[in-house]
Amino acid sequence: MALATAETTTTLDFGPAVALSCRECGTRYDLGPTFACIECFGPLEVAYTWDGPDAGRTSPVTREQIASGPTNIWRYRGLLPVPVDVASKPNLAPGWTKLVKADNLARELGIRSLHVKDDSGNPTHSFKDRVVAIALEAARNFGFHTLSCSSTGNLAGAVGAAAARAGLDSCVFIPSNLEEAKITMASVYGGRLVGIEGTYDEVNRFCSELIGDPLGDKWGFVNVNLRPYYGEGSKTLAYEIAEQLGWRIPDQIIVPVASGSQLTKIDKGFKELIKLGLVDDKPYKIFGAQAEGCSPVSAAYKAGLDIVQPVKPDTIAKSLAIGNPADGPYVLDIARRTGGAVEDVTDAEVVKAIQLLARTEGIFAETAGGVTVGVLRKLVENGLVDPEAETVVLNTGDGLKTLDAVSAEARPTAVIRPSLDAFRTAVADNS
Amino acid sequence: MALATAETTTTLDFGPAVALSCRECGTRYDLGPTFACIECFGPLEVAYTWDGPDAGRTSPVTREQIASGPTNIWRYRGLLPVPVDVASKPNLAPGWTKLVKADNLARELGIRSLHVKDDSGNPTHSFKDRVVAIALEAARNFGFHTLSCSSTGNLAGAVGAAAARAGLDSCVFIPSNLEEAKITMASVYGGRLVGIEGTYDEVNRFCSELIGDPLGDKWGFVNVNLRPYYGEGSKTLAYEIAEQLGWRIPDQIIVPVASGSQLTKIDKGFKELIKLGLVDDKPYKIFGAQAEGCSPVSAAYKAGLDIVQPVKPDTIAKSLAIGNPADGPYVLDIARRTGGAVEDVTDAEVVKAIQLLARTEGIFAETAGGVTVGVLRKLVENGLVDPEAETVVLNTGDGLKTLDAVSAEARPTAVIRPSLDAFRTAVADNS
Repeated sequence: MALATAETTTTLDFGPAVALSCRECGTRYDLGPTFACIECFGPLEVAYTWDGPDAGRTSPVTREQIASGPTNIWRYRGLLPVPVDVASKPNLAPGWTKLVKADNLARELGIRSLHVKDDSGNPTHSFKDRVVAIALEAARNFGFHTLSCSSTGNLAGAVGAAAARAGLDSCVFIPSNLEEAKITMASVYGGRLVGIEGTYDEVNRFCSELIGDPLGDKWGFVNVNLRPYYGEGSKTLAYEIAEQLGWRIPDQIIVPVASGSQLTKIDKGFKELIKLGLVDDKPYKIFGAQAEGCSPVSAAYKAGLDIVQPVKPDTIAKSLAIGNPADGPYVLDIARRTGGAVEDVTDAEVVKAIQLLARTEGIFAETAGGVTVGVLRKLVENGLVDPEAETVVLNTGDGLKTLDAVSAEARPTAVIRPSLDAFRTAVADNS
Repeated sequence: MALATAETTTTLDFGPAVALSCRECGTRYDLGPTFACIECFGPLEVAYTWDGPDAGRTSPVTREQIASGPTNIWRYRGLLPVPVDVASKPNLAPGWTKLVKADNLARELGIRSLHVKDDSGNPTHSFKDRVVAIALEAARNFGFHTLSCSSTGNLAGAVGAAAARAGLDSCVFIPSNLEEAKITMASVYGGRLVGIEGTYDEVNRFCSELIGDPLGDKWGFVNVNLRPYYGEGSKTLAYEIAEQLGWRIPDQIIVPVASGSQLTKIDKGFKELIKLGLVDDKPYKIFGAQAEGCSPVSAAYKAGLDIVQPVKPDTIAKSLAIGNPADGPYVLDIARRTGGAVEDVTDAEVVKAIQLLARTEGIFAETAGGVTVGVLRKLVENGLVDPEAETVVLNTGDGLKTLDAVSAEARPTAVIRPSLDAFRTAVADNS
């Protein structure tokens, strides 16, 4: 499991990870900066000591060891492709975000037991800090000097911040017509930010070219050549939810679907916890949530198809606006296998759901959180979610990043002169 | 220690708090929704079982009990004016934010040991969640139905969110010419938001009138009639810093100064930890940080005065823009007594410091964080901070809330067509 780099022969340290394994055909590869199977072009994912038919089912870590770890994702380092001393290296230490008992929202939706897993509490205020933190360790392992990605917002900030703290260079690629606020966030960390005159798809294609060019030598593109490691970061959402519920998997969980990677890794995380005996085995249902303006997976689910027809996104939920989601077929498979579903809501429903969550629980979600809460409401109404079962809904980002979505609706109740009479007339009588 | 409310006789439960005490003359009052001494008009603060010359010095809680508590400010509930079951009530559970070991920033500033206490990780992304959480418990104790405040931004969001989750009404008063983004943040939680045609000072005066009027009956203004409780929330910054350093008070700490309350309560927190034997007794220096465009305390410090001359604020650090800071004289006293100082920096230095912190540690601070980091740099240069001593600098808010401060400086490195040739020409040759 050692790779030769250009300058030195380095022993890689990925903790309990032992190989990359093709999700389609199972072919195994040495741990390296690759992401697609050369046999069948299927996606590669990280395989661990406990994977495979012959592997033991003994957890490398106990609940007690995890609980005594740091209050971030590194408490699960024994279950992640990272070295055992990862917590002592400079990184953003994301995770251990709040699992909020949402009794007010549950009452409004007619659900008995509901929690919101609120990932807006991460260092750059989205779940992307989790996946970037794992990709960063892979970049260090492979001796890369530059962290990179294509992004439409959240990922750009997460990569820029992580690289700054780790002392790596960064170079982030975005469509040049991005909103000013996102450009500011993406560039404040001092790395290189390159606007590409083109769509997000064109940015992606450019990054793939760059990986094959000497210009991109020793560059880690977190969501391309480091994607197998990157994806593992989403498992920590499953681990945290289970631990925060008292080492129990919820009955139902609603997850946003962009590329679909996050949903598949949450399923992987729950399965690992069961396999390793860290939680009791039990059934759970995973529901996917999309915005109607970019709902290729929901459309395929409803049509009973196994493949996903690409679409051209048109929705305010820009962080979910991937028209050709790589993991779409796996999302369909997981939703059907677990007894879940994939559903979508309109932009108007997204805005109403953002407001509902803010008004009931004091959580200001980005549009992706409006999508999951809106879809939850719809799933209760159409009977696909059981209102008596223990339910978790994800908020993966922060409302401060998508202010425009609600600014037209969120206005002052009144504007008055500074006098009690004016207040009495304008507000008190209406309340 | 029981107060009669209009409807019922309620036994108040403020945990270890036993009275309000005048900071100037020491006169004691029953715990109630009052904030000024009727003898001398001095500010009232919360007194505990361990205060006073005759009180014992035994801590009501041990380090171990604290460490086994929740990962939020309620781990210190035994040292706060809150009931013992506070963690089970619906609130935002702020605190336990990261104390980031800032080796990169330390190197740039020429300091041996530096940590950043990063309060942007709080639920509404500023330290205001700490103070509002304590005020909320007071409001519940007093049977108030509405949470209120005057605010120019951070506090409005913190009050709106906390009230929403607690199931209280809220009514927040702001100057009507506030930035759109802050209006959105303040109103999204569904409470009443009232714009006042006037300055922040006029908003404040209006709130004071409202407290005396039947219209404001059973209203808790967190920063007026609940101020003694509210202020105690800032003690948790001192507790967390000491615990996160391994139960040790740092040698030097740099704190932003708006009203000055936060700085005085951090001093109070350190003194309590020493008195109760939770940390070893040792000297520490507290430094106050202001923006030059609103630096009345720094000006008084430099002039050797005990009183603070009010100013008209003109700075991008709007969350610190209080021209007549109520606790200014106490800040002067603490800075001089501990061997610290009060210093100020220009708006240009604030912007540079925001970028420095982002570039070195991946932390995107609001302007107030630029003020503290900028002042730290200045204090190293002028020799007032000892570069060999253990130093902590506060970031009290999030860069997403003050994007305008850096948006002109944070631009893409290049904008190119999606081709390797264009990239090679525009960027790679410059790197």
